[in-house]
Amino acid sequence: MAMTGDVLGFTAGTAAAGVKDGKPTRTDVALIASDRTCTAAGVFTTNQVIAAPCVVTRRHLEQGRLRAIVVNSGNANACTGEQGERHAVMMARAAAQRIGCDPYEVAVASTGVIGVPLPVERIMKAVKGIGLRPGEWGDVAKAIMTTDTKPKSIGVDVPLSSGTVHLRGVAKGAGMIHPNMATMLAFVMTDADVDVEALQRFTRHAAGRTFNAISVDGDTSTNDTLLVIANGASGVKPRGDDLAQFANALEGVCETLAKEIVADGEGVTKVFEVIVRGAASAEDARRAARTITTSNLVKTAIHGSDPNWGRILAAAGRSGAKVDQSCASVRIGEVVVFASGTPLPLDRDAVRRVFDRAEVPIEVDLGLGTDAARAWGTDLSAEYVRINAEYTT
Amino acid sequence: MAMTGDVLGFTAGTAAAGVKDGKPTRTDVALIASDRTCTAAGVFTTNQVIAAPCVVTRRHLEQGRLRAIVVNSGNANACTGEQGERHAVMMARAAAQRIGCDPYEVAVASTGVIGVPLPVERIMKAVKGIGLRPGEWGDVAKAIMTTDTKPKSIGVDVPLSSGTVHLRGVAKGAGMIHPNMATMLAFVMTDADVDVEALQRFTRHAAGRTFNAISVDGDTSTNDTLLVIANGASGVKPRGDDLAQFANALEGVCETLAKEIVADGEGVTKVFEVIVRGAASAEDARRAARTITTSNLVKTAIHGSDPNWGRILAAAGRSGAKVDQSCASVRIGEVVVFASGTPLPLDRDAVRRVFDRAEVPIEVDLGLGTDAARAWGTDLSAEYVRINAEYTT
Repeated sequence: MAMTGDVLGFTAGTAAAGVKDGKPTRTDVALIASDRTCTAAGVFTTNQVIAAPCVVTRRHLEQGRLRAIVVNSGNANACTGEQGERHAVMMARAAAQRIGCDPYEVAVASTGVIGVPLPVERIMKAVKGIGLRPGEWGDVAKAIMTTDTKPKSIGVDVPLSSGTVHLRGVAKGAGMIHPNMATMLAFVMTDADVDVEALQRFTRHAAGRTFNAISVDGDTSTNDTLLVIANGASGVKPRGDDLAQFANALEGVCETLAKEIVADGEGVTKVFEVIVRGAASAEDARRAARTITTSNLVKTAIHGSDPNWGRILAAAGRSGAKVDQSCASVRIGEVVVFASGTPLPLDRDAVRRVFDRAEVPIEVDLGLGTDAARAWGTDLSAEYVRINAEYTT
Repeated sequence: MAMTGDVLGFTAGTAAAGVKDGKPTRTDVALIASDRTCTAAGVFTTNQVIAAPCVVTRRHLEQGRLRAIVVNSGNANACTGEQGERHAVMMARAAAQRIGCDPYEVAVASTGVIGVPLPVERIMKAVKGIGLRPGEWGDVAKAIMTTDTKPKSIGVDVPLSSGTVHLRGVAKGAGMIHPNMATMLAFVMTDADVDVEALQRFTRHAAGRTFNAISVDGDTSTNDTLLVIANGASGVKPRGDDLAQFANALEGVCETLAKEIVADGEGVTKVFEVIVRGAASAEDARRAARTITTSNLVKTAIHGSDPNWGRILAAAGRSGAKVDQSCASVRIGEVVVFASGTPLPLDRDAVRRVFDRAEVPIEVDLGLGTDAARAWGTDLSAEYVRINAEYTT
């Protein structure tokens, strides 16, 4: 009995296990299940200090097939020593028992404090008792929140020539923005029938252009996980143009979730989008855009609507990308402040008005080539500092 | 008539040119001169968006000989287009006229707002009228300040077997911590007689272990400059062990200035020292240490004395250095929190007491090799955000 537009063949449920402090005052465990085997693709943190659930899930994904995803918030199961992996496997086993599948068909994800042993018994008990229903995506999005202020979930219908398929994405938290609460987690479910190689290719591509282009504080989490699972329940197997359309829809879901994560960053009062054009290579474009979004000086200037554009160019210059200031131009909204190596007379109020927007567009043309990249960042506020400095005190 | 311990053969002076806003309310131009030609070594910003004075000074340094250094605060002469270099050369020429030397024997440095044309006529006029006297180091240190709260200057005597030589260092501001006020500048004068190759080698080595190991906000300035000039006026030419002792003294001067810069960072309430040991390579040790000092999450945790040590290991893990958490250990002051891959029972109050110190020692042993590195960072406070966000508003 799926809701209109819901992904077919999926159910989900949540439970309150008291992961963080033993008190089951909020839901903190979620289980997502498919009624049949899915093809599955995943992208994980590049941090070498990788959390145990990521290690286990990466291993389970080697076969490219999943039946379920089990997640807890309140504890990241990261830097937990040898027992961490054992605990992640125990979570997978509990979910497999609940659903009746092989533990290797279960992905595990955790988010929360680092370096504290996982209360795995409480989680296993909760998983085994979870009720599964279709359409529970709002509850799942809530259960995986840590200090997020809003649940993040999106569903889209993709009408293809061979029939309509559905995608559902849920996500939480950006990078390591959260005090004691590591982790970006994102899960996308679809009832399209897509083979594992294509799914992995689309997932990597979408992650590179969406989740890997956002930053709140430049700190890569130990637990970052994006999983995309396709169960084929729609009976539609996209080919040719349909496959490209499916890939676009997947990227659209990822972009929406990525932007929601940025906008909900701690202490965030506005977000900014950086487009770098004219780079000598795609990697250079990405580097320059990413470095601008992580510069504390750019972030504070935007926070205070200080028309201090020199910081943007200086950030590009230290990014490692090839930069020759005599070819570079900088535009803030509609205001060109630096054109082909020369500063223009600065209309401070015009720049300030752009910085006053909730979404600030910044464009840097390096004038060296044809490659471009986009990235999204957040301002840096005193509130961010307060939240991150005073979590336990 | 040098003060006791003053470097011989050097004079200096300052002037108020009203660089920033036309109002000569404070000294903002300084000139340092030697009565004879110095060997000279320099290290400049690695930012590809390099300021005009750095470009000009690097060119002048190619011959390894200097007579003078001319500096202004209030304007960085960075991102100023083609005229920027012309203006820097004009500053050098004015100083050369004042002293009676070749413009190529003058180093130029600027610090302040980026992207605003330099008021070079006012500066030239001020330079031509500067009075030069020995022992004016306190005044020089004041004239090059931007939002520094304290002038930074140090003098040391180095008794060598062949006689005593003197070193004098002056410096300002850390990295790009300053709103609209880019730049770290540091100048070291000595009356030792040291050839240019040795001086350059010592300078690079000292810079790598001191100035290049500090961070306030991770933003590399467009104007960073370290100049070391040696005029030989002591009549002492160190050799063998004496040369090693001279190099140590130079590094000591640089370390003192570097730490003063960190401690005077905007909004800083405490500093922390990170020692990374057991790295697989020297570069890995440096990377891990530097990444920990620039992590906003580590900086806010220390600010709030939040015993959240997982952030330290997570920062090392994303640094690019080889990290295997099963071999790693983390110590905060005397408190070991993670030993060879296993978290120890956390004494939160003990860690909090270490974080409450004005100088917080942190040690990470990667357990992979024998290389080590040190780096110094600052906490991140709401005051930092306020200063950087509200500079012009």
